Parts: sequence; C-alpha cells; structure tokens
Amino acid sequence: MADPADPTFHDPRMRGFRSRASVESVLNLIEERVARLDSESVPLTEASGRVSASEVVSGVDVPGFDRSAMDGYAVRGEETFGADVYSPIPFRIVGRVRPGKSAPLVVGPGEAAEIATGAPLPEGADSVVRVESTSVIGSTVEIIEPTSPGRHVGARGEDIARGAIVIGSGRALRPQDLGVLASIGSASVVVVRRPDVTILVTGDELVRAGLPLLPGRIADANSPMLTALVARDGGLPRVVGPLPDDRAALRDAIEQAARSSDAVLISGGSSTGPEDHAPSLLAELGELLVHGVAIRPASPAGLGWMGRVPVVLLPGNPVSCLCAYDFFAGPVVRRLGGRPPGWPYRPVEVKLGGKLASVVGRVDYARVRLVEGKAEPMAIAGASILSSTTRADGFVVVPADLEGYPAGGSVTVWLYE
Amino acid sequence: MADPADPTFHDPRMRGFRSRASVESVLNLIEERVARLDSESVPLTEASGRVSASEVVSGVDVPGFDRSAMDGYAVRGEETFGADVYSPIPFRIVGRVRPGKSAPLVVGPGEAAEIATGAPLPEGADSVVRVESTSVIGSTVEIIEPTSPGRHVGARGEDIARGAIVIGSGRALRPQDLGVLASIGSASVVVVRRPDVTILVTGDELVRAGLPLLPGRIADANSPMLTALVARDGGLPRVVGPLPDDRAALRDAIEQAARSSDAVLISGGSSTGPEDHAPSLLAELGELLVHGVAIRPASPAGLGWMGRVPVVLLPGNPVSCLCAYDFFAGPVVRRLGGRPPGWPYRPVEVKLGGKLASVVGRVDYARVRLVEGKAEPMAIAGASILSSTTRADGFVVVPADLEGYPAGGSVTVWLYE
Repeated sequence: MADPADPTFHDPRMRGFRSRASVESVLNLIEERVARLDSESVPLTEASGRVSASEVVSGVDVPGFDRSAMDGYAVRGEETFGADVYSPIPFRIVGRVRPGKSAPLVVGPGEAAEIATGAPLPEGADSVVRVESTSVIGSTVEIIEPTSPGRHVGARGEDIARGAIVIGSGRALRPQDLGVLASIGSASVVVVRRPDVTILVTGDELVRAGLPLLPGRIADANSPMLTALVARDGGLPRVVGPLPDDRAALRDAIEQAARSSDAVLISGGSSTGPEDHAPSLLAELGELLVHGVAIRPASPAGLGWMGRVPVVLLPGNPVSCLCAYDFFAGPVVRRLGGRPPGWPYRPVEVKLGGKLASVVGRVDYARVRLVEGKAEPMAIAGASILSSTTRADGFVVVPADLEGYPAGGSVTVWLYE
Repeated sequence: MADPADPTFHDPRMRGFRSRASVESVLNLIEERVARLDSESVPLTEASGRVSASEVVSGVDVPGFDRSAMDGYAVRGEETFGADVYSPIPFRIVGRVRPGKSAPLVVGPGEAAEIATGAPLPEGADSVVRVESTSVIGSTVEIIEPTSPGRHVGARGEDIARGAIVIGSGRALRPQDLGVLASIGSASVVVVRRPDVTILVTGDELVRAGLPLLPGRIADANSPMLTALVARDGGLPRVVGPLPDDRAALRDAIEQAARSSDAVLISGGSSTGPEDHAPSLLAELGELLVHGVAIRPASPAGLGWMGRVPVVLLPGNPVSCLCAYDFFAGPVVRRLGGRPPGWPYRPVEVKLGGKLASVVGRVDYARVRLVEGKAEPMAIAGASILSSTTRADGFVVVPADLEGYPAGGSVTVWLYE
C-alpha cells in the first residue's frame, strides 16, 4: 500500500521538467567543454580507422633511389640518340639488375644493363630503354629507339620527398594511409587515444540479455545497443549493470566509473520520477548542467560532469536512448576520440511519402522507411518500440521551429546503414 | 653477367599478356564461383556489423505483459466515464506499481493503483489515467478526465509479437538490431563466419615495415594496406611475408595458405616477368582462370582457385595493388562474408575540373581530388606513387568503351572516406 505520508512517496503532481534545454544549447556546451584526448602509439596493423594525433612528416625519400619504371635496358641516354629501326645502336650487356638486388654494377660507355621495373638504376646509367625497343643478339642488345636522360626512371623521392607531410593531423586513417606510413619506414603511428566509456545501465525491470525473464521484467536492450554505438564511434565500451534503481548502488557506480573512464553514459533513471536517481546524484557528486531537453523522444536526457569526465544521462526507453545517444552521447564520444562530431549516417534528400507532424518548440527524431524512393513516416512512434528503429531505414529531424513537413515535401533522411 | 644461354634467363621480347580479360568477365566469374561461407554463433556484444546468417523469429512477445505508457493511475476505464473538472470521480488508492516490481496487486471497483511508465498493469485494471488529470487527497485520487479501456496501455507484444521476424537474413547488424535481439531474450546471434584471408606478400626488394632499409630496398606498404582492407570488408587478415621471389618458398606458402584459409591474396610476382612465379604456380597447383585484366593500373592481376579457395593475384605496385583489391579481391572477401559485393565507398556526382584522358579497351581507375566541389584528376598517375591515393579523395572509373571524360563532364567519384 502506498502511503502519501511515507517520505519516499512521490507526489505525481510534481512531475515533469520545469524547462527544457534546446538541442542547440546542449550541443554548444559539448563543443565548448569536450576536448580531444591525449595520444598513444599503435602498430600500423592496428591503426586502421584510428585518428592521427599529429602531422606525420617523412624522414626519408621514397623511393630511396632512382629506379626503373619499365622493364628494359639501363643506358647512358645520350648514347642512344639517333637510334631507329634502320640504324639500331648496339650495347654490350654487362648484367641484370632486379628489384631488391643491389649488385655493384656500373654501366660504362657503350654498355647496357638489363633492368626490371622497380630495380635501382645502376651507376653510370641515367635512363632506360623499354624492352619493346630492343633486340638481344648474344650478349649484345640493339636499341632501335632513342631515350633521353631521366626517361623511364622514377626519381628518388618521386613518391614521397623527405620532409613532406604524408598524413595530416586528425585524419581517420585509411588503408592506403597505412601503406604510405609503412613506405616511409614507420611500423607504428601516433593516434588519439580511444575514449574509455563506461555504460551504466539502471532499471529494476531489466534482466541481462539471455537470462530468463521473470513476470513484469524486460530484457536489457540498451547494453548491447550502446556497446555497439560506442564502439562504432571509436570508443572502448564497458557495461556496468543492469543495476537496480538503488541510490546508494548508483552513487558508487558513478563515482567508480568517473575515476576509470573518459566518459560515462547512464541509461535509465534520467527523468523526474522517484526512481530517477541519476540527475540528482550527478548534481550532488559533480555538476548537472542540463536536465530535460526539448526533443522527442528523448526529453528525459541530461548532461553533466564529474570533474573533467562528461556524463550523459540517457532515457531508459530504448528508442529514446538511441535518440539521446545520436544527439548527445555520440558527439561526446566522437569529440573525445578526435573524430568529426557530426553523425556517421549518410544523408539522402528525398520526398516525404506522407505528412510528418511535429510540435513547435521541440526537435523531433522521426523514424522513416524508404519506400520506392520516398520517406514514409512510421506509424508507430512510441519511445518504447525499439523494433521501429530496426524496421526504419533512417530518421528525419524536424527542427524545433517547424510544425512538421507536408506530404511531398523534401527532407533529409539520415540512413542508419 | 646475364647469359642468354642460362635457362633462367628471360627473353624480354616474350613479355606482356597475350590477351587481357575484361573487368566485367572477372566480376562475373567471382559472382558465379564465390559463395557465402557457413555460419557461427556470436555473443551480441561482438555482433555489431556482422552479417546475420538467417532470419531471426521472436519466440516471445515484447513486452511480455500489458504495461503503462504513462505515469498515472491504473483503473477500470468504464468507471471514469463522465469525469471532468467540475465532477471529479474519486478512487481509493490501493498501492503503487513500478517497473520490475510485480506486486500481486488487484484493482477492484472504485480502486486505482499509482503506476509508473513501463510498469505492468495490475490485475483488474484495463487503462491508465495520466497523472496530469488527477489530484491526490490522502489515500484518494480524484480523476478529472475519463479514460477508456486500453488507453495509455502498451499491449503485450506491441513492440514485437511472438512469431514476428525481427531480423532478416544477410543483414549487417546495426546497434539497434542488437537491442532488438536482446529484447527477445537472445544473448547471441547466428552470423556468417568471417572469411580467413591469407595475404602472401612477395618481392625480393621488400623490407617489413619499420625495419631498416638496405640500399635498393623499399618498405612493404602492401601488408598493412591489405590487412586494413580485408578487415574493413569483414575478413580476418593474416599476413605471410614478405617472401623472397623464390619459386619453392612461394609454392609452399600457397599450398599452406590454401589449406588454412577461405581466400588467398598474393601481392607481387603477378606479372609475366622471370620473377613472377605466382601465376604459373597457381596454374600448376590449382586453376589459373584469369591472368591479365584490361584495367589500369592493375593489368597484372589474376584470379584462380586452389580447390574451393579463391586466389587473387595482386600487382606489387601499391597503387595497382589497391586498384586490384578494390576491383577483384574486395568482392571476393565481401561475398564470402555474405556482404554486398559492391564498393563500400560513397558515390558522389560531381563535375570534372579538368579533362580525364583514358584509352578505349581498358577500364581506368583514376584518382581525383575534390576541389571546390569539382573532381580534379591527379597529375601523378603512376602505379608506384602510393601517396597519390592518400592525397586523393576518391576515384573515378572510366569504362573501357570511353576515351575519358571532358573537363566539365559529370562523373561519379567513389570517395575513399
């Protein structure tokens, strides 16, 4: 029996947020206060997709030597002037140069060395005659086309000159970037450290995924979802929970997470009810700067700090949780890791297949399906219907100053894929 | 001294490919012969981005019970008919229901239970009155707005009905998909096995990244690049090498790789020179179906099989290697892993800032930069200039039947990022 005289009894008339922050003001706060983490060195084989922490300048020329760009014969170019099919010029073959073999070969006057693509030009030679313009008779090669000094030769440093910047700072490293780093002799690269992100999941009703569901309980869907989101954004996720809606337990968990993480996400208990301990605990232990945001379906979101560690409060309803991650937690994780804070979703411009209604004064995160090239707003918009986000192809954001979009209107769909 | 009588001496006039396969014919061969691998079960926390191997059907309703969609009072709806501000209807508060607490509460006639969003509807009640439409006096709640049976109640199965397909087959799992799988009680999911891909890197001139470069040597750039490409495409890369251009060593390596891998990529030694052992070894040990492709800069590419294991021959020049990976090895890896074979690059339609010249009869893989919204062909197009691919924003494919594109022409740029 509930007893209104019980000090833990919650007066439902006190519910709700007195005011809600605008999405923009929350993003501005994140931009102001969340800085890129420090850096670490990682082997090239583990550096794909990591973010370079500084410019990389080549200390060497690549290649480190003049090399043949063709299969053919290395000669002194001026000795080939005048050669043609009717007056071939013979050269004495003094040897063969292959890539990776640095035979101490010298090409003197009247001499040529067989050379393979990529092999170092032997001393004395300054150019290469293509094999198609030669014919070999015994140990003589007849040349039927002139070449000029430097012709068919890749000069030392033609790929990368010593002192050149090969990788800019803040770049997500692509496969070919790792190739270039290897080519200048690097085995490792200095990248922004991946943020350690603790995900605290709270809710008396939650059961860890895969365990039997007792009556009235639901499975914890947010842990695997947030784990994947944080990892996608370059963070190192660690889940703690599900925790019960117990103030003391959550206090301990927040304090411990703040000591060992670069960011803390708290899923659940973020609203204004009697079991919503996260906001008041954050205010008590650190700073609660935002509680309640003018966005549907993630209004019970919040943001604060434990010392230098950002803490994002995410609603427990899974769709709201995804929305709050997309809007607030994602930018925190990506900024810490030195990544562009914007969505990693691909935008497409399409027409709406039906009306998309919204309310002035709040941003709307509306899931849509793409059907025959048009965005169809999804009928089920409930914050608890997670399957709507798996049936959706993406979402449309309705800004706070619009009442929605008419059918046939042009919108940007951010594709989940 | 090279001796033409030496049986290992290579007659340069015999160089070159007799004929080159079309890009299309190679892709058709890959489509015909490369099938999706078998499947395995992985925990949800490791399943992000993996490809589902079969449809997943829910064995449960989610939620498994009727639940409140609002904070308010659970009542028998018909008892609220006629309530308004001037004639509130009083109900006796019999208790409080919270999410995750399954108190054996029964709501009888004239009774109401305080209920929180997400909490199971108590027996006897069929609807919820929003807290905003109530006022509490002692242990009585006065209701000033009628509700109807089912109102503000999320029905059992409203998110996911038992028997519904929640995930289709062949889907790359998104964060919210993992949430949905958790919500139906799964802790793991059956996904396509990641292909084990052995990368054999050959070349006498190559030095492992980070080791000192002897004269005439270059660093092995392809190993880290191919490792990252294979991992990006969902494969499990394993590098063997750099190996010397030694026929016996390469034979052993190919045989061993074919026994322990789902695909083998051989970088280097893929052309027609005397040190190019890979094509003839593949023909000898298995099948060589393609050798030489009408594409620049990857014409010395090849494709064959060792039993059921596809083997892709990639040129050693790093730009050619990247091009051959993009065109041929990537589709093999992605098809094995059950992924769409097309490029994972984002296409954009832009105008060319300068002329892009090509040659009829071969496909051209031309790197471009995006400058003020236009695609600028890169001046340096050499197959060995890997830094051109790091300076490039993407590439344009010139089909075999075109001589190129004029300045100002519209082209598709495939963005590396």
